[in-house]
Amino acid sequence: MDGDTKTMTFLQEVVDILMAYIVESFDRETKVIDFHYPNELLQMNNWELQDEPATLDDILISCRATLKYAIKTAHPRYFNQLSTGLDMVGLAADWLTSTANTNMFTYEVAPVFVLLEYVTLKKMREIIGWPDGRGDGIFSPGGAISNMYAMLLARFKMFPEVKEKGMSSVPRLVAFTSEHSHFSIKKGAAALGIGTESVICIKADERHMGIVITASVDTLCAVIFLFVLMQGFVPFFVSATAGTTVYGAFDPLIAISDICKKYNIWMHVDGAWGGSLLMSRRHRWKLDGVERANSVTWNPHKMMSVPLQCSALLVREEGLMQNCNQMHACYLFQQDKHYDLSYDTGDKALQCGRHVDIFKLWLMWRAKGTIGFEAQIDKCLELSEYLYNKIKDREGYEMVFDGKPQHTNVCFWYLPPGIRYMEDKEERKKHLHKVAPVIKARMMEYGTTMVSYQPQGDKVNFFRMVISNPAATFEDIDFLIEEIERLGQDL
Amino acid sequence: MDGDTKTMTFLQEVVDILMAYIVESFDRETKVIDFHYPNELLQMNNWELQDEPATLDDILISCRATLKYAIKTAHPRYFNQLSTGLDMVGLAADWLTSTANTNMFTYEVAPVFVLLEYVTLKKMREIIGWPDGRGDGIFSPGGAISNMYAMLLARFKMFPEVKEKGMSSVPRLVAFTSEHSHFSIKKGAAALGIGTESVICIKADERHMGIVITASVDTLCAVIFLFVLMQGFVPFFVSATAGTTVYGAFDPLIAISDICKKYNIWMHVDGAWGGSLLMSRRHRWKLDGVERANSVTWNPHKMMSVPLQCSALLVREEGLMQNCNQMHACYLFQQDKHYDLSYDTGDKALQCGRHVDIFKLWLMWRAKGTIGFEAQIDKCLELSEYLYNKIKDREGYEMVFDGKPQHTNVCFWYLPPGIRYMEDKEERKKHLHKVAPVIKARMMEYGTTMVSYQPQGDKVNFFRMVISNPAATFEDIDFLIEEIERLGQDL
Repeated sequence: MDGDTKTMTFLQEVVDILMAYIVESFDRETKVIDFHYPNELLQMNNWELQDEPATLDDILISCRATLKYAIKTAHPRYFNQLSTGLDMVGLAADWLTSTANTNMFTYEVAPVFVLLEYVTLKKMREIIGWPDGRGDGIFSPGGAISNMYAMLLARFKMFPEVKEKGMSSVPRLVAFTSEHSHFSIKKGAAALGIGTESVICIKADERHMGIVITASVDTLCAVIFLFVLMQGFVPFFVSATAGTTVYGAFDPLIAISDICKKYNIWMHVDGAWGGSLLMSRRHRWKLDGVERANSVTWNPHKMMSVPLQCSALLVREEGLMQNCNQMHACYLFQQDKHYDLSYDTGDKALQCGRHVDIFKLWLMWRAKGTIGFEAQIDKCLELSEYLYNKIKDREGYEMVFDGKPQHTNVCFWYLPPGIRYMEDKEERKKHLHKVAPVIKARMMEYGTTMVSYQPQGDKVNFFRMVISNPAATFEDIDFLIEEIERLGQDL
Repeated sequence: MDGDTKTMTFLQEVVDILMAYIVESFDRETKVIDFHYPNELLQMNNWELQDEPATLDDILISCRATLKYAIKTAHPRYFNQLSTGLDMVGLAADWLTSTANTNMFTYEVAPVFVLLEYVTLKKMREIIGWPDGRGDGIFSPGGAISNMYAMLLARFKMFPEVKEKGMSSVPRLVAFTSEHSHFSIKKGAAALGIGTESVICIKADERHMGIVITASVDTLCAVIFLFVLMQGFVPFFVSATAGTTVYGAFDPLIAISDICKKYNIWMHVDGAWGGSLLMSRRHRWKLDGVERANSVTWNPHKMMSVPLQCSALLVREEGLMQNCNQMHACYLFQQDKHYDLSYDTGDKALQCGRHVDIFKLWLMWRAKGTIGFEAQIDKCLELSEYLYNKIKDREGYEMVFDGKPQHTNVCFWYLPPGIRYMEDKEERKKHLHKVAPVIKARMMEYGTTMVSYQPQGDKVNFFRMVISNPAATFEDIDFLIEEIERLGQDL
């Protein structure tokens, strides 16, 4: 099928289906989810692949069926993940990206996209606060990979021979992060051959700044000092978190940077979730000290509502990524091309082919301006403050941590009337642990809203409400609370 | 912006721009590329990001400008990469994927896509030849990452303690691949802390089977035996290539599997480029023995023309990926959900969030059927045979290797009249080295076609023609030859 009338008609028919889905997604009368169990869903359509072709009409039916059972992530009452919402300019940009169907590895095949990545990364580094926006960076397939890149760079910076000789040429490396950091730090350490046991998770200090739960700087300092004293161990990497996944807490970056400086350790800031607060004049103080980092993960696909995926790793030192990862493949990076080869950026990536993730961010930034992103982010934080104020003293609610949340994460228990006055603390806890999963299951069965829950440490299952959806309003927050009470009162 | 009339109108306007671009892309009268040097292109539009928002009209102008300077990768005369062409069903599926805007990590947020990944991976494993399609796998962001996964799994299989304890707990690991293998094998070894020096590149045997250039099995066997004898070294991984990047050669999988079996080494087949030949009854013999592999990389975004990116890693052993990579993040993979948790596949990935790459492949497979992919692949191979027959004895051409290509790679030198009869061999070689880059630069400036070139070993720059574009015809092959001669005759 190529560009003939029949295929253009087909494409338009698909667009019509998508447009209808979009309109529906923003409609509060629509279900967020039409839930079916895996075995049911397998029966509800013929999903099997066949030898023979289907007709275009069949293909349209498949598209409709796929959307029927999809989660409406754009729905104003979808709060389940850190990435929610659907921006129309971002979507248009993603459609254009698919149509252009190219690869980021060379300027030759992606001239505009390579330039836009250059322009955008520079702008993001300026916002971080690096002089003249100098430095390096890359858009990678998600925050976990961005964090892994940071660890890879830190190791290479300290021991460049590791590239050729492997870990057998270096001492035992030790990395540090808080117990509330994202699991990708450990995943990265496992993959890179460092090992999860070499990631020291610093106990969080629940009283830091009186309001948030962050890595204890004193503990970090003491533990690093111990490893420095021990022979054969080399502390090489600290990953501070700017916006933890569950609590939305911000580690104290300035204090951490002092320690990193003292011991000559690479400082990474995992701002996958919280990095976007740098766009807000009102909230960017929470990342004070980020400009001292060696690298920063920042995912515009979360708080900035750029369609999935869009994750950036920003690096302060120029040239390091290239040296760390390049392999000089001569079939791609010919040295006798007729244009400036510094625009062939592919060799600094771990990937060979790399999806174009830049255009949706760039186009949204054009459409909103920096102030538009700021307003959107500020509004989400305002909504979360509204939620916090609404439930903090409300009967039947307990907050998981004291004080106003620093990000949009509001963590709380809902206690159904039946267990509110239970005297046996252990019995109460046991009951409470089962409440959130049941309410969540009912939410999905009714399809009215979706919000996440989890246990953490010795804390039984609690709701983690997050707001990154620009379509959400105060009324949606009210709805969420009413819905939790409606679905949970009999538990 | 949400689903209101104004935004729907905007979205339709973008679609109209994209449709016009598609029609143009398939039109041979259109240029493949409107080339400008990076500094020129930076001046040709205002690409900078601003504080203030732009109007929707400005956004449409930006979309048009971006496409004006984009490479028309769907153009029937675009032969520059292994991924070319644009399938309309694949494109529609990618637009739907963007609209659904979700994440592969849990069934909860991607029920249909998770099931389709399950169905499709099983089908691919059946085609590989694993009993009942059993095994495991994942769609990853490109072949380089798929290959890295394979190496990671091989290491974990042999030394599971490496996950916690890192490389300091294991002996020096040694991997083997051919000198013509993809650079991602070394890149992966560098990242995983194995080190590039531990990747032994086996010299290719140019006479293997009389026609192709593949890893010499005798050398492989001897080198592995040497490492087995040496204390402290453990051969753990062989990556055989099914379709090398430049020559399109297939390593002898059966012979390699015998060696791997003998020494208990993980056998990986990098079929990123050649794996799709498994869909062709006429050509799948080239991968005979693939069913003996422990893992296989297979990129449907190459020879099957699925939009970028779509790369699968298939793994023979069930459960290994999960054990190797899982970190049990309790905020995502809650153990008390109300559905079958085996469908929450996210923890087996290195990524946390994972882009939905499955739907475009699945929908194309529905539309074409297995026989449709087969026909498309067979046609590309037929075109490459046509090219080979056309130039092998033509004046002014020299083939880089003897015999009919096994894949669609046709590697050749074009010798302009002026150097055809040059007696000084070294002088001739020096001249010839400059020919391909100049012809390529001229192709890009005229915008008529694009084909890749590179040096390899002691061979000076030659053209590597590859055909994966279903829109290409015999006439386009004729055109390429005429164009090379037109652009190169004065050199």
